Amino acid sequence: MEDYGEGTNSGDRNRTMSIKLTYASPEQDADLLYWSGIFTCDPFLAFEVEGQRYAISNVLEIDEMRHNSKFDEVFLPRDLVDQENPRTIDLIQHILERFSQRDLILPKNFPAHLVLKLQEQGINFSVVKDEFLPERSIKSSAEMIQVRKACAVIADAFWRVRSILAEAEIRDKFLYYDGGLLTSERIRMEIAYICFEGGAIARETIIACGRDAAFPHNRGRGPLKANEFIVVDIFPRLIESGYYGDMTRTLLRGQPSKAQIKMYDAVKIVQNQAVSQIRAGKNAKEIHEDNMKTFTKLGYPSTDATGFFHNTGHGVGLALHENPSIGERDHYLQNGEVITVEPGLYYPEIGGVRIEDVVAVAENGVELLSNFSYEWVV
Amino acid sequence: MEDYGEGTNSGDRNRTMSIKLTYASPEQDADLLYWSGIFTCDPFLAFEVEGQRYAISNVLEIDEMRHNSKFDEVFLPRDLVDQENPRTIDLIQHILERFSQRDLILPKNFPAHLVLKLQEQGINFSVVKDEFLPERSIKSSAEMIQVRKACAVIADAFWRVRSILAEAEIRDKFLYYDGGLLTSERIRMEIAYICFEGGAIARETIIACGRDAAFPHNRGRGPLKANEFIVVDIFPRLIESGYYGDMTRTLLRGQPSKAQIKMYDAVKIVQNQAVSQIRAGKNAKEIHEDNMKTFTKLGYPSTDATGFFHNTGHGVGLALHENPSIGERDHYLQNGEVITVEPGLYYPEIGGVRIEDVVAVAENGVELLSNFSYEWVV
Repeated sequence: MEDYGEGTNSGDRNRTMSIKLTYASPEQDADLLYWSGIFTCDPFLAFEVEGQRYAISNVLEIDEMRHNSKFDEVFLPRDLVDQENPRTIDLIQHILERFSQRDLILPKNFPAHLVLKLQEQGINFSVVKDEFLPERSIKSSAEMIQVRKACAVIADAFWRVRSILAEAEIRDKFLYYDGGLLTSERIRMEIAYICFEGGAIARETIIACGRDAAFPHNRGRGPLKANEFIVVDIFPRLIESGYYGDMTRTLLRGQPSKAQIKMYDAVKIVQNQAVSQIRAGKNAKEIHEDNMKTFTKLGYPSTDATGFFHNTGHGVGLALHENPSIGERDHYLQNGEVITVEPGLYYPEIGGVRIEDVVAVAENGVELLSNFSYEWVV
Repeated sequence: MEDYGEGTNSGDRNRTMSIKLTYASPEQDADLLYWSGIFTCDPFLAFEVEGQRYAISNVLEIDEMRHNSKFDEVFLPRDLVDQENPRTIDLIQHILERFSQRDLILPKNFPAHLVLKLQEQGINFSVVKDEFLPERSIKSSAEMIQVRKACAVIADAFWRVRSILAEAEIRDKFLYYDGGLLTSERIRMEIAYICFEGGAIARETIIACGRDAAFPHNRGRGPLKANEFIVVDIFPRLIESGYYGDMTRTLLRGQPSKAQIKMYDAVKIVQNQAVSQIRAGKNAKEIHEDNMKTFTKLGYPSTDATGFFHNTGHGVGLALHENPSIGERDHYLQNGEVITVEPGLYYPEIGGVRIEDVVAVAENGVELLSNFSYEWVV
């Protein structure tokens, strides 16, 4: 971005401020959903000037946007430009003029075709290096209630999964339920139903057994086996508000081996340790490194595809994966951040274990937003 | 994009071809979902060279992507770059080297921060003016089956809506059902259930009565009234495949007025006329203009916010709104395009009527992919 000196009146501070501007759809962009508060399908321009938020809608959406979105003001293109179908770039130019601003601040995912037009027109802009709305990381109590609600739905789903596993019959190391083999797909469908009843959409739920469980994002497919780890990772999105929950439990139906017990216990020890270290001001990287060290000490070394090879956690809110990340980078945790804590161990010959909860960072520790038993042998 | 001459061997045609490259997530980008065939949450690089499609995944997703996506090959970053955490821009540079290509073709929504890095590195690229994957407009029979399936789920939902309206009791011009006022919200929830049972997610369903119905994308809220138009627009997405259906019926519980009958009939006439004009080779703009003319002739003039003021239709597939558009621009319809046909009339003092079906364009007409009665008085 150019400096502000040239041509501005140094006594007029407003003229030197920038406009935060995005072009996206709330269905596909958590930042814009944060501003709009409602889901709409097609992309539109939205911007913030001096704490006020504006959107440019169209004749189809305008009534919905004016009455139900959180924007301070919603314009039609004709409110800004005396032209029948103004181009997006013309609208941007008029926004800058109307609000007497000279610079744009854009999100990383601002569309390429508009970037090229801004350059053609010689409009000053900068693309943020990290988050467009860093304030999203710090959750209000209303937002925490939403995440907690989504996690409560997950807990309902876990009860159902446990009861299905408990009712299942073991024959030749496979599980039978309701007249047939019990599969990942069947459990996934049951979870989707429970979540839907709870007002949330659960997609891509992970029900990974045996070898599948050794690959963190393998969804799991086919018949479930007795005496094997079953990683169940559920991350539904509330239909109304768009907030996510995210929890994982690892279950086993039958008799665990000593090696499985040792591995499960190691993950539980590390998960407890991580949760107990979280508090405002703590460097998340240290927590992650301590987890690695403890796993090694407990006899579980890591490579880049076995052992513990993913982050300890991530922010969760209107996006499933958002800031901050609890991993190899420095990040000093802040009061009000909502993060997952999800260490895991993965070895193809034995399978995988992951335990995941959601916590809110507080001054002296955490507030648990998720709650379900850690009993794992069914 | 620069020309291809400089520095290339004119005898080696491969060296002069470009790479189509995108950086997105299949959950948020229909083009990438078209390539991947599976939903994943986080953005990644994907590209096409000489008809082969590649993705660059990470250690978490790699197993899922290799076994279940439609990509011809899935790389890990370390397969391309001997570096621990290579930057996306480094990966792009290595893709160009590995495939001996010099130019990139990028989608309109390619992220701004990567555009700026490409410019810094002096990498040749062009951003497409229209669709990144224009081939998506022409649906295979397998794709048509998906859209048809989504529309069949919608038809089930319409049966339910009709039966609820029929069972509702009229008192003081309001509808009562199941012990209370019948609301948009209640009907929306019932539709969501039916769609979910059918394997689809219905969000933002429009149940707009009275004044609400006069604004095309007003979702509708609160108690439903007797003797008023109720626009019911349902557009669920199949959970497994990601294909959408999109249908609208306008219903009325009670006694329609002469004005309402005339208005409904006008929309039905125009919808019939539009469907009957569709065939491969026909200019969509002519169909749209004929609709406008017929409405005027039938006594329904339009302004930019009353009468008929939206397009006649749009493509539907992995995105709810995709190419082609049946509106004010020239577009010669092609065999295999799947489009909605949804004329409507909107006047705040009487409400709105819209009738929408989905058709596949064929050589000599259309194949109807949606099917539900047009009886509207319940």
